Amino acid sequence: MVLERLKQMAMHVTGNTPPPHPLDPLSESEIEHAVSVVRKEYPELFFNAVTLWEPRKAEMLAWVADADHTVRPHRVADVVCVGKGSTVYDGLVDLGEEKIVKWEKMEGVQPLITMEDLQFVETIVRKDPKCIEQCGLIGIPAEDMHKVYCDPWTIGYDERFGSGVRLQQALMYYRPHEDDSQYSYPLDFCPIFNADTHEIIHIDVPSIRRPINKAPPNNYHAAAIEAEGGFRTDLKPINISQPEGVSFKVDGRTISWVNWKVHVGFNYKEGIVLSNITFNDKGTERPVFWRLSLAEMVVPYGNPDHPHQRKHAFDLGEYGGGYMTNSLSLGCDCKGAIHYMDAAFVNRAGSPTTIKNAICIHEEDNGILFKHTDFRDDSVTVTRARKLIISHIFTAANYEYCVYWIFHLDGTVQLEIKLTGILNTYAMLPNEDTHGWGTEVYPGVNAHNHQHLFCMRIDPNIDGPSNTIYQVDAMQGAGEVGSAENKHGNAFYAKKTRLETAGGSMCDYDGNTSRTWDMSNENKINPYSKKPATYKLVSREVPPLLPKEGGLVWKRAGFARHAVHVTPYDDDQIHPAGRHVPQTSGEPSAGLPAWIAANPSASIANKDVVLWHTFGLTHFPAPEDFPIMPAEPMTVLLRPRNFFLKNPALDIAPSYSSAPSGKGTYSAKDGLSKLITPGCSNC
Amino acid sequence: MVLERLKQMAMHVTGNTPPPHPLDPLSESEIEHAVSVVRKEYPELFFNAVTLWEPRKAEMLAWVADADHTVRPHRVADVVCVGKGSTVYDGLVDLGEEKIVKWEKMEGVQPLITMEDLQFVETIVRKDPKCIEQCGLIGIPAEDMHKVYCDPWTIGYDERFGSGVRLQQALMYYRPHEDDSQYSYPLDFCPIFNADTHEIIHIDVPSIRRPINKAPPNNYHAAAIEAEGGFRTDLKPINISQPEGVSFKVDGRTISWVNWKVHVGFNYKEGIVLSNITFNDKGTERPVFWRLSLAEMVVPYGNPDHPHQRKHAFDLGEYGGGYMTNSLSLGCDCKGAIHYMDAAFVNRAGSPTTIKNAICIHEEDNGILFKHTDFRDDSVTVTRARKLIISHIFTAANYEYCVYWIFHLDGTVQLEIKLTGILNTYAMLPNEDTHGWGTEVYPGVNAHNHQHLFCMRIDPNIDGPSNTIYQVDAMQGAGEVGSAENKHGNAFYAKKTRLETAGGSMCDYDGNTSRTWDMSNENKINPYSKKPATYKLVSREVPPLLPKEGGLVWKRAGFARHAVHVTPYDDDQIHPAGRHVPQTSGEPSAGLPAWIAANPSASIANKDVVLWHTFGLTHFPAPEDFPIMPAEPMTVLLRPRNFFLKNPALDIAPSYSSAPSGKGTYSAKDGLSKLITPGCSNC
Repeated sequence: MVLERLKQMAMHVTGNTPPPHPLDPLSESEIEHAVSVVRKEYPELFFNAVTLWEPRKAEMLAWVADADHTVRPHRVADVVCVGKGSTVYDGLVDLGEEKIVKWEKMEGVQPLITMEDLQFVETIVRKDPKCIEQCGLIGIPAEDMHKVYCDPWTIGYDERFGSGVRLQQALMYYRPHEDDSQYSYPLDFCPIFNADTHEIIHIDVPSIRRPINKAPPNNYHAAAIEAEGGFRTDLKPINISQPEGVSFKVDGRTISWVNWKVHVGFNYKEGIVLSNITFNDKGTERPVFWRLSLAEMVVPYGNPDHPHQRKHAFDLGEYGGGYMTNSLSLGCDCKGAIHYMDAAFVNRAGSPTTIKNAICIHEEDNGILFKHTDFRDDSVTVTRARKLIISHIFTAANYEYCVYWIFHLDGTVQLEIKLTGILNTYAMLPNEDTHGWGTEVYPGVNAHNHQHLFCMRIDPNIDGPSNTIYQVDAMQGAGEVGSAENKHGNAFYAKKTRLETAGGSMCDYDGNTSRTWDMSNENKINPYSKKPATYKLVSREVPPLLPKEGGLVWKRAGFARHAVHVTPYDDDQIHPAGRHVPQTSGEPSAGLPAWIAANPSASIANKDVVLWHTFGLTHFPAPEDFPIMPAEPMTVLLRPRNFFLKNPALDIAPSYSSAPSGKGTYSAKDGLSKLITPGCSNC
Repeated sequence: MVLERLKQMAMHVTGNTPPPHPLDPLSESEIEHAVSVVRKEYPELFFNAVTLWEPRKAEMLAWVADADHTVRPHRVADVVCVGKGSTVYDGLVDLGEEKIVKWEKMEGVQPLITMEDLQFVETIVRKDPKCIEQCGLIGIPAEDMHKVYCDPWTIGYDERFGSGVRLQQALMYYRPHEDDSQYSYPLDFCPIFNADTHEIIHIDVPSIRRPINKAPPNNYHAAAIEAEGGFRTDLKPINISQPEGVSFKVDGRTISWVNWKVHVGFNYKEGIVLSNITFNDKGTERPVFWRLSLAEMVVPYGNPDHPHQRKHAFDLGEYGGGYMTNSLSLGCDCKGAIHYMDAAFVNRAGSPTTIKNAICIHEEDNGILFKHTDFRDDSVTVTRARKLIISHIFTAANYEYCVYWIFHLDGTVQLEIKLTGILNTYAMLPNEDTHGWGTEVYPGVNAHNHQHLFCMRIDPNIDGPSNTIYQVDAMQGAGEVGSAENKHGNAFYAKKTRLETAGGSMCDYDGNTSRTWDMSNENKINPYSKKPATYKLVSREVPPLLPKEGGLVWKRAGFARHAVHVTPYDDDQIHPAGRHVPQTSGEPSAGLPAWIAANPSASIANKDVVLWHTFGLTHFPAPEDFPIMPAEPMTVLLRPRNFFLKNPALDIAPSYSSAPSGKGTYSAKDGLSKLITPGCSNC
């Protein structure tokens, strides 16, 4: 092991194989290495996670500023192990030092459920006598138990069982045939699985029983559509090609594209992590964001009947957006020239595993970037936009989340999320009243109301780490109609409210004032506008958390109580619902509420801060969403305001540009010429 | 003329040249025809507009239902003429009957300003002694008057001049060189132009004078960028091609694409008008919308100083989204295989004129339509989306509006508007205080705060004309946390409020309840969900009208006071700020407020209704928006809910589909096979 390390250091010196960037995810060999260090001391444990423990920000900032004269941050593995008796251990392994530098037995917490944890449950449920009995009661004979399936969720939190034992709830389904969508055949009872002993410890049975659905299958796979008349044949191909390849450069995991530069990380919880995002402003590499990620989410369901209150998945903190990520295939998910990155994880046994093509990086045409015609002479400039997209897709049991981090030529960073996949469904009797808590999307299938609330962690670095957050509201000017100051009543302005302390930072959305939030560097004033260099958070899908104050979801998902929280930067504050989310009671609320409560008067003005933005949508299902849901997109924008001196995309070659004088006309095909035929010959 | 008509009728009988669809815009020959009829009686008049007078809806519905046994609606021209002394005439000419069937001299109104009206003003201003004097006062010598330019807006309304005389206000600019952007050199005074006498009748001069800006030019045309180092060369081409052509069919102006069918009209005010939109639901052509258009807009500016209150352009009603539309060139504005339509208008002298390629119709790839992976076995279905886009772009002096009507495979209709072009600017002194009403986007250039508020006219036809509008709010369920009915506080539901009368139909947006509006056919209940067939209006950029109640903009732009108004269908109610918008005083408010006030108790439940939706954004300018603004998109969605029995796009061939059994795997390249190698070979 020492030899290997020396070899690595030697490679560093000779420059043959550069060492990983300090923010690169652990490689398979680094994971193996970390496991071997832990194994020596704790051979009996299973692995829940081995992931990069990111270098402390101060250390990283120093290294980024002057890598040649700064000690390279150590590679450290963040390890979570589980043992018999639902025991949990958190540790840190310094890979250079080859030793465990921190090890702690955790009490009363449960780490997330891995894909391997999920896979166990179905087998157990099928053999469990009590489950077989319940199936019999609703019309499934014992010999059909191989047709019984389950989506094994974490239990969330159930006060009857607490947090000491690692539990899952099995949402039950049936498939008449192996290829039938089980979501048309939900079962009405819910077994509780002990992940430590692999036993069903309890079954929640409703007071009203609902026999197995007798409706015909409702499928979307190719054979089913073929049987219904087949696929349509009138769609002609749309080909997208990049014969000269992509326009971005890849150096390790750092992507350079036009003026942007960004490091692409990935971990098992957040999925994609973007770090050290800079924009080259006419030769000056200006920092914009230190770190961006989707840090948490919660999907509360709106049916108050027991045990549906337990359906409020924290898909990142309870399962992991990285662990659940899809292996993407060229052409199926993105078109054009694609660059892929893999994702390496540990399995329960401690071996490294890799999801191939976990991250997709590609460009897309994006319509018009800008256009103007002079009405006097029809001289015109029209320039096409494109975007760089860094994406992954994860499957959370029934549902898929497609996460697109998008960089635009005009300096905008966009997070787009598309929701697709299959509705979570529950059994209903013919003519049963949904009481408005759900919709019968297919005979006998009740899809409950739910919200998708995402928490985006934004670590701004607007010309440096000292930033200030303002709430910005579009407001009417003072002065009534007829007054000297506002005679015609048309005055309006942007009211800015400076957020001063963590305890006072909580903001809700207000559509009525088109509320946005500015992340500003007050020390960097735009020489034209005299306003601070800013990136503006523009987000329009911002429903409040509908579960009530003091209730289970409200307590557990503290981050979702407000559209915006701001905290002073802290290296250990990454997960806004806490580090280990399953089976948290919410008493007290972990993550954001706890951090803020610890020091509510902490200053956040002109400081290194983190802005936590919760956004999403409320979904009242309809039959159109079933048996598979057309993708529903949702967007958050981070837009430069008073950051640049002018539109930063003026140097993008236009499709066509002509000036009133007729001189210096430009076309994409012919370039600039003194005299070319007007009109766009080829763009 | 009679002979020509007989010839047309003969062609109809022989079927050689089919007659126009009753909703087709007037052709050049029909415009000529209408002008000749008017000319006979009113040879002294000029033409402001000759456009299709759309057949009455009842007549059209009958004809659409059974064209073979119904009298074909007559072709009728809607004519607006202007005469000396600012006189205005509205008339109707029946082209079949060859006669004027209605003629009215209008009092106290002014029809919109045409592009020809606009072009006059600059010449007059340059020669006007008082304008030359004002230019001299701010540093422009008389010999440089050829460098003085103006954007001649309608006056809007100015109480000093009223509505009797046709007026324009000249927003003044300067160009050091012919090719310099004038918007960096705004002048501080504002001449008033009498469009009847072609005289400057007044100049509004501010109390504080602002000498001509001395900053260097701030240009974006090709030669300017070349001089600054040229265009970047690191963007590799992204080619989009459709080697087999488009997937839509064109029959006259009716477009059929996948399950959609739509008639594409166009007129000088609204631009694109979509009519008789239907969706083929497994063989049944179901009506969805009778007519969709962008019917009006207003752009109020937020600086209360005189005369900036006059800056609140109704770009459609005061200038015409059709009249200002761009001629689009292949490749510059859209990629792939494009179908264009021209637009024919009348000019002032009564001759027909045509804008070539006014409307662009094309398809685009649209990413993932739906995807699901079974986590048990990684069997997956992934299907790509595409969209049909019917678009036009219009230039309103400094600004461009790109209007995209988008049809999706999943039954969604989207209106996307991209804002680009150049900010309206005003002069400012060095270190002058903007008082928060604007931003200095370049030295000496003040870009005032403004709103873009669009009014979308939606004539729903959800399985027929009898529709009902509901306001829908996401609400917490009753019962406190701990109560039997809502123990964990997680209950939530969609609260629906039925809109009963026109007078009670006004709704504002509420982001806090994720408010939407349902357009439902209560007579057509979804057999699964037991809910009425519905299209839901989903719109998230819905600022309130910021100019105050009782003020000038509030009075003139009544439609913008609320996010939603609903009226009983009336053939004559197309323009929500009135038929002739320039110089309306707003006392009383024309259009929507007048129509509703005339019969506030008119029932709108289960009736033929029109929903007017005002949406848009509030823009606080920044230097990034200058000297030309990166396109800012904004979207309204009309989504089917409880309209279909299932996802209507299941018959779109997937990129790849596999089922758990491994049988019936499908790939885009190989189609369905019993056994193909897993993975996507080509999509």
